[in-house]
Amino acid sequence: MVTTEIRRDPITGRSVVIDRAPFKRRDDFELGPVRVDDAPAACPFCEGREADAGDEILAWREGGPANVPGWSVRVVPNRHPILRIEGGTDIRSHGLFATRDGLGAHEVIVETPLHDQPLHTLDADHLWRVLWAWRTRLQDLKRDSRFASVVIFKNHGRAAGARLDHSHSQLVAYPMVPPAVADKVHAGARHLEATGRCIFCDLMAEELIDRHRMVFDDAAILAIAPFASRVPFETWLMPREHEARFEEVTDSTLKVLATAIRSVLSRIDWALERPAYNLVLHSAPLTGDADRAFHWHLEILPRVTRYSGLEWGSGLHRNPVAPEEAARVLRDRQEAS
Amino acid sequence: MVTTEIRRDPITGRSVVIDRAPFKRRDDFELGPVRVDDAPAACPFCEGREADAGDEILAWREGGPANVPGWSVRVVPNRHPILRIEGGTDIRSHGLFATRDGLGAHEVIVETPLHDQPLHTLDADHLWRVLWAWRTRLQDLKRDSRFASVVIFKNHGRAAGARLDHSHSQLVAYPMVPPAVADKVHAGARHLEATGRCIFCDLMAEELIDRHRMVFDDAAILAIAPFASRVPFETWLMPREHEARFEEVTDSTLKVLATAIRSVLSRIDWALERPAYNLVLHSAPLTGDADRAFHWHLEILPRVTRYSGLEWGSGLHRNPVAPEEAARVLRDRQEAS
Repeated sequence: MVTTEIRRDPITGRSVVIDRAPFKRRDDFELGPVRVDDAPAACPFCEGREADAGDEILAWREGGPANVPGWSVRVVPNRHPILRIEGGTDIRSHGLFATRDGLGAHEVIVETPLHDQPLHTLDADHLWRVLWAWRTRLQDLKRDSRFASVVIFKNHGRAAGARLDHSHSQLVAYPMVPPAVADKVHAGARHLEATGRCIFCDLMAEELIDRHRMVFDDAAILAIAPFASRVPFETWLMPREHEARFEEVTDSTLKVLATAIRSVLSRIDWALERPAYNLVLHSAPLTGDADRAFHWHLEILPRVTRYSGLEWGSGLHRNPVAPEEAARVLRDRQEAS
Repeated sequence: MVTTEIRRDPITGRSVVIDRAPFKRRDDFELGPVRVDDAPAACPFCEGREADAGDEILAWREGGPANVPGWSVRVVPNRHPILRIEGGTDIRSHGLFATRDGLGAHEVIVETPLHDQPLHTLDADHLWRVLWAWRTRLQDLKRDSRFASVVIFKNHGRAAGARLDHSHSQLVAYPMVPPAVADKVHAGARHLEATGRCIFCDLMAEELIDRHRMVFDDAAILAIAPFASRVPFETWLMPREHEARFEEVTDSTLKVLATAIRSVLSRIDWALERPAYNLVLHSAPLTGDADRAFHWHLEILPRVTRYSGLEWGSGLHRNPVAPEEAARVLRDRQEAS
């Protein structure tokens, strides 16, 4: 009989219910079709249809004019933006209700000119260019003082919310620090005040001693199955040395990160039989002084479980795979290959 | 071009990005098969297979022995419980990490003996018996002083996390107040301290004047499209008079609530073409003194949008249907029928 335990995330404080049992692929995992199956003929992200995706904000190309074939990574505006560049930052209150303009930016990073090339099949040089695009856009958006924070994310597969198969990530700049980032900023600030240290650095130090949740630690980027993982095989990638801001990452760290992303995604692909997943990049807010309290990191969230009434109703996630089990499976894969 | 605005929920403080455009059913809504299509022949909740579902904790039956046919509503233990009755309440800390036993209760309320009878097609008397079962179980679980809070929820349809088609709801008793309830308790306590009033009562008073988000207000239970609705056609049902605890609800209020649930679910079924949905019941924590600060309510959450990297990454929901539009559509349906 499977017993569970309730774990508290050391950074956000959120609780998760974790099953304590050896890992096996469960018949209630959502391992249905990952692909959306949009027709390549109508895909706006394919090479040759640059006009459909819109004018490029940024591209990696070997010379030549903009908005024509010849690129390997291309950044364009989202055609259905959640936030727009027009608007003010004031908050309008009316009784209990407060509203502000949907001000911000919403961009798409098209990760490859080819329709059928998932992120983790890109070679390390190409994946590096994707990360270069993320960093370059962050550096640029930071110049607009109306933006408080940028979140970069990726939806891979239908169950993760993707609407197009063509590999892409998205970037949203917010006029305020969104809750998922703010929770971590506040926790980091409290820990800094109490201890004088970065909570992410302290967390890595403990994980490096314990080792049960370590996926790999052989380079400048660590891969950890977080103690209070919300979903099976959740994995965090973090720079070993303290570094708050993704916009300040060096080229060489980006290279290590590209290799680490490829490695983790390939292992998860094997362990969960090509699941849908989300990626999330959290970097210090653009404004304010979180340089000592925050530490940038990338969250990888396979989506084989559903967000149900349990999660809506309690705010707790239930995770049927303990992170120690997930880390063991992912480590073993490396040794086998 | 659709513009958006960012709204702050007056109770939880969480932000939501809302599209400002007239409602239309969108081609990106998830309106796929709601049914799980499990075989009725193997359904443990069907009449005649009482032994498969387990010993009943409670049932509504016209006399006769337990665990045999003849019931209309039946409560059994969950066969894959998230929390169990065995365990202690102590928290074990190790460095940054804190764990506690998965102590609690996890029960299933089988809402009908028939395999193919969705909740909103039950007659009002039958639906009343479901609510009676919820109330009775809350009253009973309250006697166990190790439990701090109970959340009742329902997953209807595949996209809402249901694994069986047979209509049922679930109840979880927690050893602590889970975050989704705790956030509301804290907000209610702050408002009470600042104003001497219940924040839910104040919210209803404002909505009754404004009326743009009111679905109906003709009885003891109001139906409101919340200002910062997280999903299209999110609807809250709340008692008009202050009442903190669902376990203390009168029979006559349960009757009005049964009618209100039927009415809202039927209208949503029409507006979104039989969507999957979650129901969540929030009542004051069993322990502590939230009687003046909390106000029980039922959340109805249609699941036609995906939880994507945007939500994971920012903690913000994007809702493509403004609650004023949803309330208008649901009101109009009443006038038409």
